[in-house]
Amino acid sequence: MTRAELFEQIQKKQSFLCVGLDTDIQKIPMHLLNEEDPIFAFNKAIIDATLPYAVAYKPNIAFYEAHGLKGWASLKKTIDYLPKEVFTIADAKRGDIGNTSGMYARAFFEEMSFDSITVAPYMGIDSVTPFLEFKNKWVILLAATSNPGFANFQSLTLANGKPLFEQVIQTSAQWGTADNMMYVVGATRPETLREIRQVIPDHFLLIPGVGAQGGDLKAVCDAGLNAQCGLLINSSRAIIYASSGADFAEVAAREAQKIQQEMAGFLK
Amino acid sequence: MTRAELFEQIQKKQSFLCVGLDTDIQKIPMHLLNEEDPIFAFNKAIIDATLPYAVAYKPNIAFYEAHGLKGWASLKKTIDYLPKEVFTIADAKRGDIGNTSGMYARAFFEEMSFDSITVAPYMGIDSVTPFLEFKNKWVILLAATSNPGFANFQSLTLANGKPLFEQVIQTSAQWGTADNMMYVVGATRPETLREIRQVIPDHFLLIPGVGAQGGDLKAVCDAGLNAQCGLLINSSRAIIYASSGADFAEVAAREAQKIQQEMAGFLK
Repeated sequence: MTRAELFEQIQKKQSFLCVGLDTDIQKIPMHLLNEEDPIFAFNKAIIDATLPYAVAYKPNIAFYEAHGLKGWASLKKTIDYLPKEVFTIADAKRGDIGNTSGMYARAFFEEMSFDSITVAPYMGIDSVTPFLEFKNKWVILLAATSNPGFANFQSLTLANGKPLFEQVIQTSAQWGTADNMMYVVGATRPETLREIRQVIPDHFLLIPGVGAQGGDLKAVCDAGLNAQCGLLINSSRAIIYASSGADFAEVAAREAQKIQQEMAGFLK
Repeated sequence: MTRAELFEQIQKKQSFLCVGLDTDIQKIPMHLLNEEDPIFAFNKAIIDATLPYAVAYKPNIAFYEAHGLKGWASLKKTIDYLPKEVFTIADAKRGDIGNTSGMYARAFFEEMSFDSITVAPYMGIDSVTPFLEFKNKWVILLAATSNPGFANFQSLTLANGKPLFEQVIQTSAQWGTADNMMYVVGATRPETLREIRQVIPDHFLLIPGVGAQGGDLKAVCDAGLNAQCGLLINSSRAIIYASSGADFAEVAAREAQKIQQEMAGFLK
């Protein structure tokens, strides 16, 4: 998917919501456990219900891998089911030496048809560029994440006075363009978001941490929106597990709609 | 596997060789393509042939993921086939927020019975510790890798004067012990290895880059060996693709034996 196509969807749906499919067999409604593939059955219902309000979907690959072959089958069915007009993100946090990153790219862009993949920056240029060789596919690079471990390395000050995450963004932005790279920036730090917008005014940012991790939508939009929206805001647990009853899809839709309506206000 | 058990195997085989199973369908001998599962057939032959000379095996997960469900089936068969006395490494470079890293741990330690997994440090403490909660399982954390991208971030100097990779080691060594953590250190940099041994004298180090990436075994041993060996040296392509003919397993065994004999000299 191109940046223009993504922005078109955002305008059409008046939403920049990404629904995180962190589908946990221990958290989905009991009645689904009778289905042949409970994880896919859950995802399918969530996708159908939230599609009017979301422009992106992000399966969290770990949740599928944890079930081995069966999990990969559920993941494959999910990506095949997602309609072409939504932006799909393999939240996989991959990254390895060149030939190996190339293999991961094949796994997520060819074997499965994801539009994008999250990548960890620690191994540098040759761990990232193999993903950029695929046309209209995206790298979403970890920059400033929303978890406690952010404080261990990402926020360390370099000898040049910059925090590591800022250097990661500045250096890696040279490897691609705003048309094939996005960055992960935690919503729990709007001040960070403002700094980052100075460095990369045009790139899309994927913001996890609104919802279960406790970010604030207005603060994020004030600091992060640009002329082409430039934000995808993810919510996983707060939507998909909003109800654990038979009405889970309905309630998920209601939660997604609530966020979409807030977003519509900020898009004006 | 415990550190004592690993050292016992090293003494018994007089080897600290790890064979990297970067099994690429486009590089394995043509005649194997007639097998029902060519990747597993190749791995099985390589394992059988090199087992007297190697103490560890490291499937590179990307090479399996690239084939989707079929690839995961080959990987599962491979880990199930590997005998209990060898140390098994899922070279997966995973790492995510706590609950997600916990799912990856389940994938590689429970769904598959790997002894260890390579983990990327960028997301900090809560991305690593979930892997350490499994008894006798290991995290092998990326520290100083052997690829060109090392120069982008890992080698940057922090405000405190240390290179980032050294800070990663120093900080993360507090999260576990020499009995459940190892570090990845590129063999292309023996001077780095020497610095790292000052910080963590006891930990095992996984050294990729001997062979196809051009490291030198003697320099690595001089800088890195400790009283309990403390090194696992990986060779992938130089062993498994030493011949592309019908004799591939035989030639792989010969290459592995050559390295083992050199290693025996350094263990004295």
